[in-house]
Order: sequence, then C-alpha cells, then structure tokens
Amino acid sequence: MSMYNVVIVGATGVVGRQVVELLDTRNFPVSNLILFASEQSVGEFLEFNDDSLPVQLLDSDGFKGADIAFFCAGAAISEQYCSKVAAAGVICIDTSGFFSADDSVPMVVPEINPDSLQGIKAKRIIANPGCASIQLSLLVQALRSATKIHRVVVSSYQSVSDAGQKGIDELRTQSGELLNGRPSKNKVYPYQVAYNCLPQVGGFLSDGYTVEERKLICETQQILGGDLLAVTATMVTVPLFYGSCQSVNIETETELSIEKVRELLSSFAGIAVVDDVDNLEYPMPVDAVDQDELFVGRIRPDASVAGGLNVWTALDNLRKGCATNAVQIAELLIKVYL
Amino acid sequence: MSMYNVVIVGATGVVGRQVVELLDTRNFPVSNLILFASEQSVGEFLEFNDDSLPVQLLDSDGFKGADIAFFCAGAAISEQYCSKVAAAGVICIDTSGFFSADDSVPMVVPEINPDSLQGIKAKRIIANPGCASIQLSLLVQALRSATKIHRVVVSSYQSVSDAGQKGIDELRTQSGELLNGRPSKNKVYPYQVAYNCLPQVGGFLSDGYTVEERKLICETQQILGGDLLAVTATMVTVPLFYGSCQSVNIETETELSIEKVRELLSSFAGIAVVDDVDNLEYPMPVDAVDQDELFVGRIRPDASVAGGLNVWTALDNLRKGCATNAVQIAELLIKVYL
Repeated sequence: MSMYNVVIVGATGVVGRQVVELLDTRNFPVSNLILFASEQSVGEFLEFNDDSLPVQLLDSDGFKGADIAFFCAGAAISEQYCSKVAAAGVICIDTSGFFSADDSVPMVVPEINPDSLQGIKAKRIIANPGCASIQLSLLVQALRSATKIHRVVVSSYQSVSDAGQKGIDELRTQSGELLNGRPSKNKVYPYQVAYNCLPQVGGFLSDGYTVEERKLICETQQILGGDLLAVTATMVTVPLFYGSCQSVNIETETELSIEKVRELLSSFAGIAVVDDVDNLEYPMPVDAVDQDELFVGRIRPDASVAGGLNVWTALDNLRKGCATNAVQIAELLIKVYL
Repeated sequence: MSMYNVVIVGATGVVGRQVVELLDTRNFPVSNLILFASEQSVGEFLEFNDDSLPVQLLDSDGFKGADIAFFCAGAAISEQYCSKVAAAGVICIDTSGFFSADDSVPMVVPEINPDSLQGIKAKRIIANPGCASIQLSLLVQALRSATKIHRVVVSSYQSVSDAGQKGIDELRTQSGELLNGRPSKNKVYPYQVAYNCLPQVGGFLSDGYTVEERKLICETQQILGGDLLAVTATMVTVPLFYGSCQSVNIETETELSIEKVRELLSSFAGIAVVDDVDNLEYPMPVDAVDQDELFVGRIRPDASVAGGLNVWTALDNLRKGCATNAVQIAELLIKVYL
C-alpha cells in the first residue's frame, strides 16, 4: 500500500486535533506527518501512532514533499497558503470555508457526491462543507432516491465549538460566572452565550441573512447538485459545548410513509435512525458527540402541507461535521485519484 | 372603583409569584388576597402592596367570598378544584392548560380575542393559553390584518422554567456538576438538560408529536379563530433558565415588504420590534426576561416560497407567556364583565 506525506495546518485547534486522532484511529497510510500551528502552540506535542510529534511553526517550506495538506486554521490562513501550496503540487483539503463559493473548487461529502472529486484537477483544492451543510445534505440526499424534494425549512441549534476552543472557553467561563452571581464577560460572541440563544451565526449580509445561513443554503444546493431545491434557514447558537441539531421541515413531491422514510434513512451510509419515542429515544447532541453518524429522529408527518415531514437531527459538528468528512475525502482521494 | 377578592392557587411557584408581583405593580384593585400553596410552602410570606401575606394550605373553604381565582399549581390541582370553585361563583383563570381542549372554556389573549371572554358564562372558567401559543399567535395576528396567512412552521427554544422551580434547580445543579467534572443526575427531565438539547416537551402522542406541540398547534388555531391556518411545530428544551424563542417560517397569501411587516408588528399592542442587524440588534431571551412584550426580529424574506417570511421571536415565558396574560385577562374581566 502507498504511504503519504501529510501536513495539518492548525493542528492544535479543535478541528486539527480531531484530524490527527482520526488519521490515527482510521489507519490512514501516513508515512510522515507534519503538524503546523501558530507561535503560541509551538513546543506542544501531539500523540500519533504511538509516537509523540512536535508542533511546528507554520512555514511555506514545510509543505515540500507533502502529498496532502489539511487546512484547519481558519479562512485567513487558507487564503494566504492554500493556492500557493496547491500550485506547488500538494492536494489541499480546506475546512475553513474560504473556497465555499469558488466554483472551480469541488465541495465533497463522500456519501453524496464522491464523483465531484474529479474537479480537483483544476486547482488541487477540495472544500470541506460547513457542518450545517453536511448535516442537512445527508438527510435530504437519503430521501431523494424515493421522491423529489420541493422545499426544506431548517432551524438550527449550534454549539460554541463551531467557534473553536475560544468558544468553548467562553461558554465555560460565563457559566461559572453566572452560576456564582458574578457579571459575565464576552469576547468571542457579541453577547452572553451561556443560558441564552444568539440568533446570529456569522456576520450579517444585506438581505438580512447571516453569512452562515447563506452558506448553509448555497452549500446544500451545491452538494446536492440540485438548483431546484428550495432551502431556507435560521441558525442559532445555543449553550452547547459540542454537537449541533437541526429541526427540519421537508416538503416532498410524493408523500412517503413514515416507515418508508425510516427505511430510506436507515439504509443510507452515515445515517443512524434513533426514533423510538415510546421509549423516549431521539437524537440529542450529548449522544452524537464522538460519533460519526448523522442521528435522525422525531420523524413524523406534517399535516400542514401535502408531502410534509418533520425531522430532528443531531451531529458531532467537529467529527462528521468537519474532521471526519475531511479525512473521508482524503481516503477517497487516495483510493481513486492519487 | 370596585375592589375584588382574589385567590392565588400555587402562589409560591414561579408563575404564582409572578401573578402576585403583577397584581401589585399593575395596581389591580384587590381588596383581599389569599395565597394558597401546598404543605411545604405553608409558613412562607409573600410581599404584596407593602404588606406581608402568609401562605396558607390550599382548602376549598378558602374560596368563599372570592371574586377571581388564579390557578397556577398544575393540571392535577386545576382538575380537582376549578370546576367546583367556579360552580360556587368564583371566576377561575386557569394557567395549567387543563382546560385547553375544552370548547366550553374560552381561551383568551387580550390583544387578540378579548370578545371570547363572553364565553365564560358557560362555566365561569377561562383558560390561559400555553406560553408557546401566546408567543406564536401574537405574531401571526399582527400580520393577519394585511394578508391571509397560509401556513406557519415553528421550531422552538424553550427554557427550563417551563417546568417550574424544579426545572430551574435541575439546570443549575447539573451545570455545576458538569463544570466540575462530576457525573450529572436528572430527576425532572428524562436526560441531562445542561449543555444539551431535548427535542421533547411533554409526553408523546400516537402520531409522534408531543402533547405540547399538539397544544401549540391547536391553541394557536383556537385563539386565532381560523380553522384554515395550517401550523406545524417542533418544540425543544434548551439550557435556558428563562425566556423562550421561536424560529418562525410564515407563508403569506399576499407578499408583504419587510417595511410593511415591521410596521404591522410595531403598531400591534404587546409587540416590540428589535431588528437592526447592522447594529447586531435582535431578540434574545436574556433581554426578554422581566418584560411583557413579544420581541420580534431577524425579519427577512424567504425566497424558497412565494410570500415566504422568516422571523425570530423571544418572550418571557413566565410573564406575557403566562402570568401577565392571566392578569391581563383579569383586568379585562373587571372592565367588561364583573
């Protein structure tokens, strides 16, 4: 079996750490692993394959000889390095969302559109979709084999780990402050996030949607390849550390029985149906954490419209919502391309 | 001005305390106030009109001479006492939801259907709608003067105070346990509620909806008096102490401009528009607490359907979502009926 030289940019962030762990546990054929981070993480060591690897300062020269680079350090770093590194021959898997709207960069969810990977010939860059887009598109794709989907209305329940370690730290600190009756401070979020709901994920666009809502709508349409799918979205940050949930209302062309919906979902790779309300079984973020499946439940007909369906899903936003999907892209890459 | 003898059943619960406070601050003409609670609260005193009133053990005889009784002690107590007390001549305002499905009991939101109060002649009981129903019906009613509303899809973000003081205690205790790395226990909710989302509010019905989802759908239709309004709902408990939010997708017959929607909402009694995203102003539960308005923001067109509209609202679930509405019913009652 071929072995590959792999670079992880942003290795000490919440996503980077997951990528390191997944390359290890999924036995990705790594010959050499280089871990890049910013100055403040230099000197740390991360465990990989029973070895302890040093974290190095991000440096253009460090990509020499690499086959695959994971970019997990945010849009500014991806903007600065991806195109240069890719032009030098390294295939870049970008998790930052920077290339989300770039038509010449394929956006891949391996269970849905593996063939789109062919598009890397143009730039040698692959975009990992945002976690909300992966969460929604898996659900919709699983149903599409049985019927056309007319419209999807989604409301999300996002966790603070979407904002990385600093989001996690802010929720923890604020919770402690508020429980102890001290005034809470906020740096990462514009307002208190503990014991609150923030109906804002990303900056605002001129049409009143946020960047992340627009991204969810556009990426889902792009991944599903259906310019006819009508999607609208409201995204909300709630006081969760990990995991993200979606309340999804779906309008199908053909009415599907609930049994049929369960069957379609259960047989789709990457989806686990947790839907036994008589025994109070339904998806919850605390159960989705550290898992790779999209958990789907509360499946019930919506009588307010023909072909209506309500569904509730939970996903680990850092695993299948980000790192797992990126590593799956790399696995697909070495199988069909490299 | 006439003065009234008032009884509060469940005076030491989170709703009962709010009713006491509101009767005071809104200068309701009380001649005598009797505070009833269960055994464990007997001996407590509550402040009212610069006086300190003793909490007494609930007792049928205590209703003698009363004009109005607020029932704030849960469905079992309302079932046991309301009809008897009302038959003896006391007008009962029930906040427990026990009479929600009883067609002979009017359900009133004073800003929407004050005339329904006439229906008390049958049983002398008035049902206070659930907080989610008040939240949704105020929004829809405000838009109905300009266009027919075809369909509403709502996803909710409920706080633990919906379950009373014991819900609040459970979130606080669990938060502390989890932040300190101790295993968390749950008694009120079937699962951990801190740093989690529970897609279950109330028990499950045979069609897969919960009792509270069904109640939200039916009560909204009942309050709005429109059997043609199609509503579907998903209700979720999130780690909030107070306040509840709704992400609402609305399909109107006539397309309304965003300016028109803002104008309709701003001019409707009981609604405050907080919608200036350029300055990051939008409704949040922490800002809604201790207020009586329904806060509406994130108003934007939904391009996925003709006449589509997305809106985000926040409400104090204990105030206008419950106690304020109940006291407003009493105010209306003494103005037009007693």
